[in-house]
This record gives sequence, structure tokens and C-alpha cells, in this order.
Amino acid sequence: MTLPPHILAADRADPLAHFRDEFRLPPGIIYLDGNSLGALPAATPERMKRAIEVEWGRDLIASWNSHDWIGAPRRVGAKIATIIGAGADDVVVADSTSVNLFKLLVAALRHQAGRGKILSEPGNFPTDLYIAQGVAGLLEGRQLITLPADEIIDAIDDDTAVVLLTHVHYKTGRKLDMAGITAAAHARGALVIWDLSHSVGAVPLDLAGAGVHLAIGCGYKYLNGGPGAPAFLYVAPALQGLLETPLSGWMGHASPFAFVDAYEPGAGIDRFQCGTASILALVSLEVGVDMHLRTDGIALHRKSEALSSLFIELTAPLCRDFAFTLVSPVDAAERGSHVSLAHDRAYEICQALIARGVVGDFRAPEVLRLGFTPLYTRFADVWNAVRILEEVMATREWDADRFRARGRVT
Amino acid sequence: MTLPPHILAADRADPLAHFRDEFRLPPGIIYLDGNSLGALPAATPERMKRAIEVEWGRDLIASWNSHDWIGAPRRVGAKIATIIGAGADDVVVADSTSVNLFKLLVAALRHQAGRGKILSEPGNFPTDLYIAQGVAGLLEGRQLITLPADEIIDAIDDDTAVVLLTHVHYKTGRKLDMAGITAAAHARGALVIWDLSHSVGAVPLDLAGAGVHLAIGCGYKYLNGGPGAPAFLYVAPALQGLLETPLSGWMGHASPFAFVDAYEPGAGIDRFQCGTASILALVSLEVGVDMHLRTDGIALHRKSEALSSLFIELTAPLCRDFAFTLVSPVDAAERGSHVSLAHDRAYEICQALIARGVVGDFRAPEVLRLGFTPLYTRFADVWNAVRILEEVMATREWDADRFRARGRVT
Repeated sequence: MTLPPHILAADRADPLAHFRDEFRLPPGIIYLDGNSLGALPAATPERMKRAIEVEWGRDLIASWNSHDWIGAPRRVGAKIATIIGAGADDVVVADSTSVNLFKLLVAALRHQAGRGKILSEPGNFPTDLYIAQGVAGLLEGRQLITLPADEIIDAIDDDTAVVLLTHVHYKTGRKLDMAGITAAAHARGALVIWDLSHSVGAVPLDLAGAGVHLAIGCGYKYLNGGPGAPAFLYVAPALQGLLETPLSGWMGHASPFAFVDAYEPGAGIDRFQCGTASILALVSLEVGVDMHLRTDGIALHRKSEALSSLFIELTAPLCRDFAFTLVSPVDAAERGSHVSLAHDRAYEICQALIARGVVGDFRAPEVLRLGFTPLYTRFADVWNAVRILEEVMATREWDADRFRARGRVT
Repeated sequence: MTLPPHILAADRADPLAHFRDEFRLPPGIIYLDGNSLGALPAATPERMKRAIEVEWGRDLIASWNSHDWIGAPRRVGAKIATIIGAGADDVVVADSTSVNLFKLLVAALRHQAGRGKILSEPGNFPTDLYIAQGVAGLLEGRQLITLPADEIIDAIDDDTAVVLLTHVHYKTGRKLDMAGITAAAHARGALVIWDLSHSVGAVPLDLAGAGVHLAIGCGYKYLNGGPGAPAFLYVAPALQGLLETPLSGWMGHASPFAFVDAYEPGAGIDRFQCGTASILALVSLEVGVDMHLRTDGIALHRKSEALSSLFIELTAPLCRDFAFTLVSPVDAAERGSHVSLAHDRAYEICQALIARGVVGDFRAPEVLRLGFTPLYTRFADVWNAVRILEEVMATREWDADRFRARGRVT
């Protein structure tokens, strides 16, 4: 089907359009799942080949110094810092999002002596809730309480130690008021940990400006760091020296290579490293992060809003005709870069779309989720995806045995 | 200098000699640091290219299923299990050695309610002591006590919860009696966590046969998994269901993709996963592990002993003439696969050796450490390394400004 002129015009006018050429995207696919696994930057294979063959293979152990492997967690952290509005010395790449949350949550709770409650919302990303449950079970007198996000501010009291929220909700795409919630929590003596996994690289972030003290985030979504890329954590300068990480591994030691018996935390953000970082994973992440350093954050966000708004506009008739419910906020200002539609048969519909080359994902039990990555999604992709979704629904293509759930994991 | 006939004969008779061709080793280098960073397997670049370009780049999110990314931690764990004498369902690859120790130590202490002491030895690998110190500070009424390894068995009492020891000492190369210490500890109701980082892939291990309950280990040394490769952990079947991991992330959940709010630990060893694993790092590790599956463990160990014994024999005159002290056990049965020589100027000597192409490492404050990787070290390498060491000492080549310590990290 021919693309309408306004779609063609939108792509022609897109100041970020050239970035698409910096990715290797498979032909014939409309990839709307960059919010789950970012696409492969074209520069990554060559950079990885060099890390593997030259740095590891040829230079071997000397690479810890000569190729600055030892500095990679801080170096890549400093680059991410510029993307999230943080100081270069306030971010480090390490471990997974879950492990980093554990570090910050335990540290924050110990810092907040005498306060027992962790507040979060039901339906927050599962690992955040699971880690919080584990931490509450580990430390004496702590409990996790979940309540709807819009009730959280009012619930913060003198016994609230930490508020744990995801900035852009993984399922609904709803974006919270980071500065407002942070200020309200701080006013009542509570700390806030922000999970930026679905924000970083897609929506503008200004952690320092929003007065944020603690945050974690993911490297394998909009940062395009590769499957299971290392995560990052942020601690505001004023808190760095006051927090003790429970994961006191040698890479967070003040002098890791002095090989002394007594633990002494490293200065500032360094202490939040734990074991030896995977260098191959870090190198891959750095390629994705480097590309972001060349983008314009405002243009990125404007395109993200335009793509998701176009999708919502185009799917409005489908919601009416095929019993989809828009789960995401209609107002672009309240949304991240993905849009979710609820449907009883979301699983089968998602599978049928994938079979037609439109790759989104399913989030149990009822959500079809489509992500719009401003660096490589075109307005034409959105238009074509909706057209295919309409066909899949109109023909009941999804209602086939081969699209029924079995053994599916992501 | 011409190699003596018995050295040439030893290499000719080596049943593992052909494995050297399966590595990419830089020309002109005698690499004796595989105990710190294993060399690059020749198969790794191509396998990584496929993981990056085909699995990530082309198949994108579908690879979690179609290339079994989701199963990689258990699949590679099962392969490592065969190397360490464990059941296929009793090992999982995850996180770093430090993080895995934290999981098992906290879980073991909570299981050992009413027992307060963690016993370890002074000079154990620093991260093990640091993690233990962190854990002792985190949990009520626990303390870390260090005492010489040969006094540990006698010190185990009714208040001893966990004994934490490294099987092959990172610095001295001393190998402990795994079965004996484990049995003695179990007889007194204590659990033992064995750190296998300097053992796995170099010395024979039979965890099930030795009655071991808990172990952790490293992927980037003798397993040749790449810089900062993921680590592994082992839990004996009888304990798996009884231990609660403090790092209760979503990948250890009974149903990670049900996205429910309540944490429920996965069955068996699965629960010890935490966040999303780095797939690129896992793929690289798997190549190294796969090579080990084709080796003969007995031949591997025999060659390891022969290499290190040859080194000790050849350096005996140097100890006498140049004031080196052999730090490692003379008896091969009490040794791992590396040998350490103490010297006041070990740092400079190590640097001078590296400048001559003999790559070992320095462990502060006084140890020159040389590792013998049976898969790629030749008897000729040992002979040549000692010859070069002798020249470096005889000419005082090490006593030059350029070999003084500055800004060195590993």
C-alpha cells in the first residue's frame, strides 16, 4: 500500500533519520521492540572484533591498563551521565539492574535508620518488587508496601525510608513526575530510587536538575548495548560518601590491587562496583552509548512523542472496531516511548504480527506492547505496522493454532 | 639458546599439545598469566561474530527463544558441572564471583540460624574477605574470623556457621584438602563455601565425590571465557530448596515472564540467577568451556603438575643465587597450576620479564606469580621463561627506571 504524503513528509523532515543507517536492521522487519532489546549498532561488530582479537587475544592481561579495561565502568558511566543529566563522577556501569537496585536499596535503608517502609507501586517491574521483597526480608524491621503511584506522595510519612519507582512504566508506558515526587519525598525525609530502564535514551532526563539522589538503569534497551548489557547506577555526590554498599567486592575497594585483608570503600561512586566487570559486555554497551552522545536530546524526545502519538492516532479506529483498549496515557507528556494496547487475545495477536514481520512484544496477561526507538524507527514503520495490525484483526489471522501460547519465555 | 633434549621430548610426548593450536597466542610472547586472564580460543571470534550479527542483529528479541539465550546460564552451567564433578542441574552461570559469594554466604548464614561465625583465612583472595566482611556487617550477630588454614578445622565449633576457603590460593598456589575439610566441617554442623576460581580447568575437581555443598568459581581464568567473564555457583541438590538467595531478582523467579508482583523462588539452582545475564559474555565463556569438555582431566592435571614442577626445579638455582623464595608448595599434590616466587623487587622483575615477552604477574607486595595453563603452555615455554628470568637477574636488567611502579593496576 502506498504511504500517505504526510507520513513520507514526516520521515523526510526527520532530523534524526540518518541514524537509522548506523544500525543493522534485518530487511523486511518492522522492529518495534527496541524498548526490550535495542537493535545492533553497525559499529558494534568491528569494535567487538577489535576488543576480542586485539585487546584480549593479542594484548592479553596488559589490556587492563593499555586499553583501560579497568577504567571502563567509570568511563562508560561518565558517558551515560551526560545522557541522564548527571555529573561525570556520579554514574558507574556495573552488574545488572537488579543487583544495582539491591546495592542502593540496602544502602539507602541502612542510611535511613529508624524508618521501616519501602513504598512502591503494584505492577512495578517485577524484579524491582522482588528485590525489594528480598531486602525487606533480609533487614530487620523493614517492609515493602505497594500502593497506586498517584497515592504514593500522600503515603510518605516519618516511617518511610525509601520510595522505589520506575520513571516510565514497563507495561503502560506511563511517565511519572520525577522532580515532583522526588521533592515531596525529600521534604518528608524519604529517599527515592528511580528505575530509569525504560527512560534512558528515549525521554529527556535531568537527574541533577530534578534533585534525584539515587537511580538505576538498563543498558540493553534504548542504549543498544546488546542482550543483557551491563546496567548502571547513579548516586548524587552528597550521598556517595554516606552510603555503604552491601556488595563490598574488591572492585569497589579503595585499593583493589593492594590485596589487603580489610575492606575499605573506594572514594565516591567507585565503591558501588563489586566484582570484575565483563569487558566484552562493556565494550558493546559503549558503542551504543557513544552513538547517543552524538544525538540531540530534544530532537530525540520530539520524535519519540511524534511516533507514539501517530501510533495512538492511527490505532484509535482499531480500538473501536476490534476491542483494543489503549493502556498508555493519551497525553504525550505523560508517556515514555512505548505504547500498549490491551486485548484478550494479545498473545496471539502479537504472534501473528511477528509472523508478518512486525516485532512488538506481549506482556502477560493481556498487553501488546510496541516500542518506538527514535534513533531507528521511521514514521513509515508506524504507519505500516498499524496497517498490518488492521489486516491481522480484520482477517482474524491471529486466530490460528500456530499462534497459541506454548513454551514462550519473553 | 637451544632447548635441551628432555624438554623437546616432553613437548613431543604431550598428549594435549594439539590444544595450543586452538588458541590465538601472540607471537614472541611466553604467556604465563592464564591463571589471571585465560588466552583467546581460536573459535571465539567467529562464534562471537555470529552471536552479534546473526543472533542479536538479525534475529533480535526472538533469540531469547530461538537461540536459547534464556537457557544459556543453565546450559553453560551444566557444562561446567561436568568439569567440576557436579550434577548438570547443580550449577548455574551468573553475575561475578563476588556477587555469587554474597548470594551463597547470606543464604548459608540464614540457613545456619543460631550460628554466628564465618571462618576464613587471612590472605584469602581479597574479594572473598571483603564480601564476608560486608555480609557480617549486614546480618545481626555474625562475625568473620580469620585464622591460618591449617588451624581452621580445629577452630570449627558449634557457633561456626560457614567456612569460606579458596581451594587453590591465588597467591601461593597452595591447594587445600577439599574433601577432608568439608567432612570435618559437616561433622560439626558447619557449611563450607569453596572458591574454585584458581582450580577450575586446571586441577581435577570432584565436588559431588568430595561431599561439597556450596561453591563458586570464575570464568575468565583457566576456562578462557574472556575478560571479566561471568562466574558460576554450585549448590548441592539437597540444599537447593532450603536456601533463600538475598538477590531475589526476576531471573530467579519461578515464572519470570508471568510478571506477577510476588516473588516466588525458582526450582532448584534456577533461583540463584538474579538479573538478565550478559549474553555476549556467556557466549564467549561457552566457547572456552566447550574446549574443556574435549580434554582429558587426568592428562590436564598431569601436565599441570609436570609444568609447575619443571619450573620449580629449574628455578631452584635462581632462588639460591638471586634471593628468590619459593612461596608455593614443593609437593605437586599440594599445589594448583601456578607458582609464586617472593622477592623484594618482584614488581620490577615482573616488569622486566614482561618487557622481554615473559608475561606473568605481580601480586603485592612481593610476589612474582607465573601460571601454567596445561592447554597452551609448552615445556619449552617454561624452560625459556626460566632462562630469560636468569638473564634478567644476572644482568640486573630489572633495575631500570622504566620498570619502577607507577599507575599500574593489575
